[in-house]
Amino acid sequence: MSVVYNFCAGPAMLPTPVMAKAQQEFINWQNTGCSVMELSHRSKEFMALTAKAEERLRQLMHIPDNYKVLFCHGGGRGQFSAVPLNLLPQGQHADYVVTGSWSEAAAKEAANFGKINVINAIDESEGIKSVKPFNEWQVSSDAAYVHYCPNETVDGIEIFDIPEFDGVPIVADMSSTILSHHIDVTKFGLIYAGAQKNIGPSGLTIVIVREDLLGKARVDTPCIMNYKTAADNDSMYNTPPTYAWYLAGLVFEWLESIGGVSAVEKVNADKAALIYQYVDNSSFYLNNIDSQFRSRMNVPFWLADESLNDAFLEQAEAEGLVALKGHRIVGGMRASIYNAMPFEGVQKLVAFMKKFEEGNR
Amino acid sequence: MSVVYNFCAGPAMLPTPVMAKAQQEFINWQNTGCSVMELSHRSKEFMALTAKAEERLRQLMHIPDNYKVLFCHGGGRGQFSAVPLNLLPQGQHADYVVTGSWSEAAAKEAANFGKINVINAIDESEGIKSVKPFNEWQVSSDAAYVHYCPNETVDGIEIFDIPEFDGVPIVADMSSTILSHHIDVTKFGLIYAGAQKNIGPSGLTIVIVREDLLGKARVDTPCIMNYKTAADNDSMYNTPPTYAWYLAGLVFEWLESIGGVSAVEKVNADKAALIYQYVDNSSFYLNNIDSQFRSRMNVPFWLADESLNDAFLEQAEAEGLVALKGHRIVGGMRASIYNAMPFEGVQKLVAFMKKFEEGNR
Repeated sequence: MSVVYNFCAGPAMLPTPVMAKAQQEFINWQNTGCSVMELSHRSKEFMALTAKAEERLRQLMHIPDNYKVLFCHGGGRGQFSAVPLNLLPQGQHADYVVTGSWSEAAAKEAANFGKINVINAIDESEGIKSVKPFNEWQVSSDAAYVHYCPNETVDGIEIFDIPEFDGVPIVADMSSTILSHHIDVTKFGLIYAGAQKNIGPSGLTIVIVREDLLGKARVDTPCIMNYKTAADNDSMYNTPPTYAWYLAGLVFEWLESIGGVSAVEKVNADKAALIYQYVDNSSFYLNNIDSQFRSRMNVPFWLADESLNDAFLEQAEAEGLVALKGHRIVGGMRASIYNAMPFEGVQKLVAFMKKFEEGNR
Repeated sequence: MSVVYNFCAGPAMLPTPVMAKAQQEFINWQNTGCSVMELSHRSKEFMALTAKAEERLRQLMHIPDNYKVLFCHGGGRGQFSAVPLNLLPQGQHADYVVTGSWSEAAAKEAANFGKINVINAIDESEGIKSVKPFNEWQVSSDAAYVHYCPNETVDGIEIFDIPEFDGVPIVADMSSTILSHHIDVTKFGLIYAGAQKNIGPSGLTIVIVREDLLGKARVDTPCIMNYKTAADNDSMYNTPPTYAWYLAGLVFEWLESIGGVSAVEKVNADKAALIYQYVDNSSFYLNNIDSQFRSRMNVPFWLADESLNDAFLEQAEAEGLVALKGHRIVGGMRASIYNAMPFEGVQKLVAFMKKFEEGNR
C-alpha cells in the first residue's frame, strides 16, 4: 500500500510506530494471551500500564504533584458540562472568552449550568482576524473561573501566551494543542483535552486539575463527570475506556522516544511555517489570521478561486493527501498537522499545493 | 502461544474471529491507508460503517422502528445518571427494583437527580437467594419509570421473564445480558448496555429508547448524555468512540454469521448448564442461587473450603483459565461466560474443576 498522509482534524492520524506496535501485540499483549482490551481494568497488568502512562504524561508536561491527572470518558464536549458542574457553585458566575467556534460552544453549554459571562476576544476590524490583548479581556475578579480555548481547531487561531487574572483559576480546552509545545501547567487551574488529536483515539479525555479545585461539585453531577470521584478512584470509579488509555500510553512513550515535547515543538513550528510561508508567498491561496495567532496544529487556507475546491481535494486525495476539507462553518481547506504528522507529509502537501497552483493559474 | 480462556466479567474476551480481522486491518482499513480509528467520524466510510452496525443490531434484536438506537460514551454508570436526567421530570418519582449490587448502585446514583423509591426484590429466607415474583414488586402506577437489572453480574442472578406494570415504562440495565438471548424489545421503554461484556471494548454504551420518551430531558443534562440530542445527530453530536463502535459492528457481524441470537442463546444455555450441573453434583463447590434465577452469563461458585481459593486460582491460571476470581463483594469464584466464550472454554473449566476437586478431596 502507498503511504497516506491524513490531515483530519480528529479523530486524527496516530504515530506510525505506535500503530505498528499496537497491531503486533493486538491479540496477545505482554504474553497474557489476551488483547489489552480484554483485560480487567483492575488487573495488576492493566493497573501497571495506567500508572506508567500517567507517569510519562507527568514527565512530558512537567505536571506538579499538586495536580491530579484524570483519564475520563466523553471527549471535549463532555468537559463543557463537567467543568461548570464541578467548578461553578450555584449563585456564582464564570467567564468564558470566545475566540472561535469551540470556545463559543463551551460557553453555550456552560450556560445550562449557571451564570456565564461571555467575553468576545476576536478583533476582525482590518480584514485580518486577530485576538484582543489579554488586558482587554474583561475578566471579573470574582469569577469562579475563566475558560478559554488556546487553539481553535476550526478557525485556525492559537494563543501561545498564557493569560493571568489575579487569582481567578484558568480553565483551558487544550484538545488540539496539548503536548504540541511546552506549556506551564502551574498557570492553570484545569486543563482538559479530548484524546483524538494529539493523544490517542476518540473516547478518552485527559483532565489535569489543581487539587484545591476538587470537591466542589454539585450534588447532581453525574458520577462519571465528578473530578473528585475520579481522583479518589484513580479514574476507575467506572470501567474506563481501557484500549484508548493503552494507546495514549504508547503515544506518550513514542513522544518520549523522539525527545519529548521540546523536540516535537520544533518540528511542529517547522511544519506550520512551511505551509504559512507558501500561502503568504502566493495569491492563489489565502489565510487571514494575524500571524502571531496562527495555529501550528490546524492550518486553514482558502483557494482564491473557490470553484477549484473540489478539484483540489480530489487531486490531493489521489496523491495520498486526505481529509483536507475545511470545517463546514468556515469552508476552504484545513491541514491538521498534529504531532503524529511527519515533516515529510507537510512537504508533500506543499509540493502538491505548488503543483496545483501551477496547473490552475 | 497456548490458548487462554478469559472469564473476566468485563472488559471481557471478544470473539476470536473478530480480533483476528481487527488485527489484520488495523493499520489499513478497507484500503483507506488509515486505521479506522484515524478516520473522521463524519467521513462517508465511517458513516457507512455506523449505519451498517445499527442495521445489524436492529436485525439481531428485532428492534422496532419506533425505537432509536444510540451509541454513547461512558459505560453503564454513565447511564445511571443519564436515565433520570432524561426521563425523570422534577417533581415526579421513579421506582428502582434492587436485586443485587448493580441495581443498587443505579438506585443510589439516581437519587442525586430526583425522588427514587427503592424496591427490594431479593428473597433470601431459606438460604437460597431468589427473586420475589413480579406481583410483589410494589411499583407505583404514577412512577415516571421503573428500573431493574435483568442480569446482576456480581451476584449471578438473572431474571428471564419481563415484568409489566400497567403502562409504566420499563428501563433495564442489560449490560451483561444484551444479545445473549432473545428479548422482546417492545416490552421496554429503554434498554442500555455498557459494551464491554457482550458487544465490544469498554468506552461505548448502547441505548435503545422508545421515541415517545425522548425530549423530556431537564435543561442541565450534559449534552453528551441527552438522548434527544444524540438521536437527532445520529450519535455524533460529539466525536463518538469510533474504534469501539467499529468493533461493536464486527461483533454484530460475527453474531449474525453464527446464526444470530437464537443460535448463541442455545450455546449459552448449554455452557451455563455444564457448570451448574457440575456444581450441583458436588459438595466441593457451592452456588446458592434459586435455579430459575441463575445467570447464564456470570456463574458464581464458592469452594466449600475457602482456604483452597488461592490454589484454585493459581492452578487454573497455569492451565490458561484466567480471571476466575469472584467480585470482592461476594468472594469465591466467578466464571463470566458471555457470547464470545466458546463451549470448549467451559468444558476445559469444568474438567479443571473436577481435577482440582479430586486432588483436594
